[in-house]
Amino acid sequence: MQASIEALTALTEPDMQAVNRLILTGAGSDVEMIPQVADYLISSGGKRLRPMLTLATARMFGYRGLHHVTLATAVEFMHTATLLHDDVVDESGLRRGRSTARMIWGNQASVLVGDFLLGQAFKMMVETGSLPCLSVLSNAAAVIAEGEVMQLAAARRLTTEEETYLAIIHAKTAALFAAAAEVGAIIAGEKAETCRHMAAFGKNLGLAFQLVDDALDYGGHSTELGKNIGDDFREGKITLPVILACLRGDTAEKAFWQSVMEEGRNDEKALETALALLHRHRALEDTIKAARAFGAKAREALAGFAETDYKQALVQVVDFCINRVT
Amino acid sequence: MQASIEALTALTEPDMQAVNRLILTGAGSDVEMIPQVADYLISSGGKRLRPMLTLATARMFGYRGLHHVTLATAVEFMHTATLLHDDVVDESGLRRGRSTARMIWGNQASVLVGDFLLGQAFKMMVETGSLPCLSVLSNAAAVIAEGEVMQLAAARRLTTEEETYLAIIHAKTAALFAAAAEVGAIIAGEKAETCRHMAAFGKNLGLAFQLVDDALDYGGHSTELGKNIGDDFREGKITLPVILACLRGDTAEKAFWQSVMEEGRNDEKALETALALLHRHRALEDTIKAARAFGAKAREALAGFAETDYKQALVQVVDFCINRVT
Repeated sequence: MQASIEALTALTEPDMQAVNRLILTGAGSDVEMIPQVADYLISSGGKRLRPMLTLATARMFGYRGLHHVTLATAVEFMHTATLLHDDVVDESGLRRGRSTARMIWGNQASVLVGDFLLGQAFKMMVETGSLPCLSVLSNAAAVIAEGEVMQLAAARRLTTEEETYLAIIHAKTAALFAAAAEVGAIIAGEKAETCRHMAAFGKNLGLAFQLVDDALDYGGHSTELGKNIGDDFREGKITLPVILACLRGDTAEKAFWQSVMEEGRNDEKALETALALLHRHRALEDTIKAARAFGAKAREALAGFAETDYKQALVQVVDFCINRVT
Repeated sequence: MQASIEALTALTEPDMQAVNRLILTGAGSDVEMIPQVADYLISSGGKRLRPMLTLATARMFGYRGLHHVTLATAVEFMHTATLLHDDVVDESGLRRGRSTARMIWGNQASVLVGDFLLGQAFKMMVETGSLPCLSVLSNAAAVIAEGEVMQLAAARRLTTEEETYLAIIHAKTAALFAAAAEVGAIIAGEKAETCRHMAAFGKNLGLAFQLVDDALDYGGHSTELGKNIGDDFREGKITLPVILACLRGDTAEKAFWQSVMEEGRNDEKALETALALLHRHRALEDTIKAARAFGAKAREALAGFAETDYKQALVQVVDFCINRVT
C-alpha cells in the first residue's frame, strides 16, 4: 500500500467533521473581522495533520468521549494563531500560494486575531477539565514562542549550528506535533509511559516533517528546477540544507552564502548557484537522511502498541512525510 | 486619610516580593532576547495594580496558601503580553515616557515575546491546579483580544457610540481587572456569589480607571495645558471625551473632529481647538461623571464584606483612581 495520509483521513473523518463544527463556533465573534480572518485561514486547505494526530491517538487507545474533539480543535487553533503571528514576523506575502492574512487585513489584525484564537484554544482546553492536557499544551505554547524568538535571533546567521537549528524546529514544529499526539493518549486515560511514547512519536514525526519541508523547498533530490522552489531562499531563511552546504563550502562559497543569505542578494541567478552547491555538497541528501532517522524513531515509538488500523495509519503518515521527497 | 494605593501596596508588599521573584523565573529563558525584553518591561515602573488586586482579594478572604502569588504573576504576564502586542498594533513609540519595546527590539520580538509571556502565564495557572481560575483567566484572554480587534475596527471612527466604546474598554481593561479580583476569591475557596461580587468590583474599578485615564489625557478638569497632554489625540485614538464632544458639536465642529481624528490633521494648534471644544461641551466632566458612577458600583460590590484592612485598601484604590483627576 502506498504511503499516504488517506488512511488517517478516512479513520478520523467523522471526528474531523465535529472538529470543523467546533472551529466555526470557536472562531465566531460579533466582532466581524475575527470570523473573516479565521474563515480565510481555515479554508486555506491545510492538511490538518495536527488535529488528526490527537483524534487518531485518542481513538487508538479506545477513547469513547468527546474531549478529543475539543483538544484537537484547540491544537488547530494554536497552530493557526502561530501561522498568523509567523507571517507577521517573517513579513510573508504568500502561504500555500494564497495571500497571507496580513496582506489582506494587515499586521495588526493578524496579531490580534492570533491572540484571540490562542485565548479560545485555552478556553477549550479548560472545558475538557484535564489539567494534564492543559499542562502539556500550555507548555507547548511557551516552547513554540521561545523557538520563534530563537529563530528570530538566528535569522540570516549562517553560523547557526546544526544543533541550534534542530532545537529551533523542535520548538517551532515538533513541540506541537508531540503535544497533539500526547494529549490524545492522556485524554484516553493511558499511563504515563504510553503518553511519553506518543509524545516521542509526535516529536520525531514533526522533526522529519520539517526537515523534508526544508529539503523540498530546494526541490528535494531532484536536480530539475520545479515550481515553488526557493521560497526559503528568497526569504533569507536559514535551514539545514544551507547550513550544511555553507559548512562544507570553501572560502568563496562561504562568501557566496553570506552575500545571498545575510545581505539579501538572493535573485534567481543566485538560486541556481545555490542549488548547484546544495547538490555538490550532498546537503539535500543529508537533510533527507536526517529526516529518515527521525522518521525511524517515530515508528519505533509506536512499536510496543497493538497493530490496529489507527497505528497503521500513523505509521503511514511517517512514511508519507518522508516519501514526499523521494 | 487621603485616597492612595499606599495601603494596598503596604498590605501586599511581602506577597509582591514573591511575585517579583516569580516574574524573574517565569521570564527566564536561554533565549537571551526574552529576559532582555521582559526585564525592560518589568522594570518600567508600572503600578502593578492588577497583581495586587489578586493578592489582596485572596488575603481578604483569609487565604493562607501560595497559589495567589502564582495567579498574580500570571495576571501580570497577561497584562505585559497585552502591552507588547498593543504597542505593535498602535505603532506606539513611547509608553510611560520610555521607548516601547518595539522601538528597541522591533515589532517581531514584541509579538513573539508577548506570545511567550502568555504561554508562561498559562503554565503558571495550570500549576495552581485550579480549573475555575483557569476558566476565568482564559476567558479574559479571549475577551481582551476580542476587545482589541473591536477597537481596531472602531479606530479613527468618530461615529463609535458611547455604548460601543464602553464595550471596548470593558474588554480591553475591565476584563483583566475583573479576572484579577475574581481569581483571588476563587483560590481562597469563596462561594460563587462572593466571587461574582469581586468580579464586579474589579470590572467597575477597571472601567473607572480607564475613563479617568481618557479624561486625564486631555488634562482632566483643568483648562491649563500641562505636560503629557494629548497622547491619545496625536495617536488618533477615539475615547469617550472625543465621542461626547463630537456628538454634541455642530456641523463645523463635527468636520473639525473628522479632519483631526479620521484624517490625522492633529497638530498642536488642533489640540488647542480640541481642548476648547471638550470643555465647551462638558465632555471631560461627563467622562469623569461616568467614571464616578462606575467607582460607586465598585464600592457597592464590596459593601457586604467585613471591614478589614484589605477591604479598606481596596476602597481607597477606587477613590485614588477617581481622585487622580480632581
